[in-house]
Amino acid sequence: MAQPARLDLTPADLKDLARGAAFLGTGGGGDPYIGRLMVERELAEGGRLALVPLDEIPDDAFIIPTAMMGAPTVMVEKLPRGDEAINSLRVLEAHLGRRADATMPIECGGINSMMPLVVGARLGLPVVDADGMGRAFPELQMETFNVYGVSGTPMAITNEHGDTAIVTAHDNEMMEWLARGITIRMGGSSLIAEYAMDGATAKRASVPGTLSLGLRLGRCLRKARERHQDPFRALIDELAETPYRHARVIFEGKVTDVFRRTTEGFARGRAILEAIDGSSTLELTFQNEHPVARVDGEVRGIVPDLICVLDFETAEPITTEAIRYGQRAKVMVVSAPAIMRTSEALAVFGPRAFGLEHEFVQVEELV
Amino acid sequence: MAQPARLDLTPADLKDLARGAAFLGTGGGGDPYIGRLMVERELAEGGRLALVPLDEIPDDAFIIPTAMMGAPTVMVEKLPRGDEAINSLRVLEAHLGRRADATMPIECGGINSMMPLVVGARLGLPVVDADGMGRAFPELQMETFNVYGVSGTPMAITNEHGDTAIVTAHDNEMMEWLARGITIRMGGSSLIAEYAMDGATAKRASVPGTLSLGLRLGRCLRKARERHQDPFRALIDELAETPYRHARVIFEGKVTDVFRRTTEGFARGRAILEAIDGSSTLELTFQNEHPVARVDGEVRGIVPDLICVLDFETAEPITTEAIRYGQRAKVMVVSAPAIMRTSEALAVFGPRAFGLEHEFVQVEELV
Repeated sequence: MAQPARLDLTPADLKDLARGAAFLGTGGGGDPYIGRLMVERELAEGGRLALVPLDEIPDDAFIIPTAMMGAPTVMVEKLPRGDEAINSLRVLEAHLGRRADATMPIECGGINSMMPLVVGARLGLPVVDADGMGRAFPELQMETFNVYGVSGTPMAITNEHGDTAIVTAHDNEMMEWLARGITIRMGGSSLIAEYAMDGATAKRASVPGTLSLGLRLGRCLRKARERHQDPFRALIDELAETPYRHARVIFEGKVTDVFRRTTEGFARGRAILEAIDGSSTLELTFQNEHPVARVDGEVRGIVPDLICVLDFETAEPITTEAIRYGQRAKVMVVSAPAIMRTSEALAVFGPRAFGLEHEFVQVEELV
Repeated sequence: MAQPARLDLTPADLKDLARGAAFLGTGGGGDPYIGRLMVERELAEGGRLALVPLDEIPDDAFIIPTAMMGAPTVMVEKLPRGDEAINSLRVLEAHLGRRADATMPIECGGINSMMPLVVGARLGLPVVDADGMGRAFPELQMETFNVYGVSGTPMAITNEHGDTAIVTAHDNEMMEWLARGITIRMGGSSLIAEYAMDGATAKRASVPGTLSLGLRLGRCLRKARERHQDPFRALIDELAETPYRHARVIFEGKVTDVFRRTTEGFARGRAILEAIDGSSTLELTFQNEHPVARVDGEVRGIVPDLICVLDFETAEPITTEAIRYGQRAKVMVVSAPAIMRTSEALAVFGPRAFGLEHEFVQVEELV
């Protein structure tokens, strides 16, 4: 995919971006409605949203990614004001003794693609058009930044009361472990700034172009609906032109069972979909996101490939905290970009990292 | 109690101090054997232990108290090396941009009276002869520092792997809540530096002379044993000359039941003692320390007064993680100093703070 040009986002873009980012969030990354509202307010208050392509960032620019952390089930009840992540960024800047030249998402998602835009608009900082997951993953070490040798700490964690923690860990697994514990004690969600790095490092360790890709996918969905075209066909065709090349609908059916609990700082659970004619059953597990999809016991999609649950008619992404009994849905599996399928990457966010016995099989090789 | 003079501790003093501090620890504050070993090594390696009376500390001296945090049940299995608390102090110094002129205990106890001595010996810092509890309490907001308006944060938390967290909280209850969560994720114990303050504040908000009091009580116990005197009588007489004026043995018997679990970062449980002749029963609950002692259902000692379980023959303090079936023990209740019995103090570490319905009644008023 060619790097998109520098981009100023307009209010009209926000719905598209939130929707497309939620698609890439593969069930996680937060509710797109909340994410959009946060950014709309920034624009209404005069903020300007400037996306900068990864390859236009100077090598010596100092980037501090920002995000929301926690269980998406909590995020929809304990709404972020939007500006708490600014505090995280400021706390980390003070600790490091260096001001950020830009911020950046750590993952794609309805909230987490938008949170850095809030920070950027408020502080006048450019937002790098890239991220550290190329989708959403539930844990902080599950980032390409970590795969390619970037330390996530020192990191800053804040809440809506102004409580803050600065964590420095001997590795990024310990960072996740400690930050998750703090987030749980902050009520199940928090705002974070982590993986501070220079531009040269970001170019080496990020998934490029994922914000503009979210915008593009959201726009594609909207246009297909406006033109009364099949939105699934439109998405598959659009993705074919991107590093997320192979997309396929693996199941159509109705949600017949959902088990979900908010535990250990995650939304964990299981959803069952049955085909309308009763001929087959899809089982989805989730830890914020869906790591695996099985149809009649056979794996049909597995991390790091993307498993996206979409409304049967509109292809609207359905996040794991919003999936519920009776919904009619199609489930799409999408191939992850090459940078996310290396052996180093699979060691960090492949099936084993989720406790699955199954080896990774690319969606294009699964029948 | 007149302020004791500046004091250099010798190896011979350490057993006395560890034992006396464990007595004041009222079941908590850590194992005195481990505490003593840590300090003995510092002395063997040439360290010098200088206790400085609170009133000799300059008003503008900068004091950073140091301690171990967590469940005492964990501390006896996950032994501190001794130097991790130095890291906490250094991390907090770096964060505050100011070097400490002295360190100080936050509580009395077999480990927590000794930990600042390790830090002091290693860094050549004087140790203030005072603390923030006048005994041991399970939670970080239960300190006279908090009662008298000192912010506990920023605080530093470290473990044996060099992982660190710097917590800043909007109040000291939130500090405890976050620090406990981090400590649990560090395996159940951690090393901390908190309540950084100047000398003038320390004079206003500390319980003075508690390290030298621990030494004095330990020495009293040792001498009573050497002279074949009643160690309980000796302790009661010695305490009568201190701000811990009223001491009384409320029960003699045998441990017939112990329920103990390590949960939420504490050692929690219950112990039952029965009189040798079976005529009465003592129930002790504990959250690291004993908040209340009931004989046949009647309250006979309650926080902040001290409830000390002591070996029946030797009056050796028995910590809550070491209490076990079949032990013969006497239980002594000791009046807390006046600074710990004010209405402000009772609001922070009186019975209600432990979820007890009972009002505080001074031991000298309990029959």
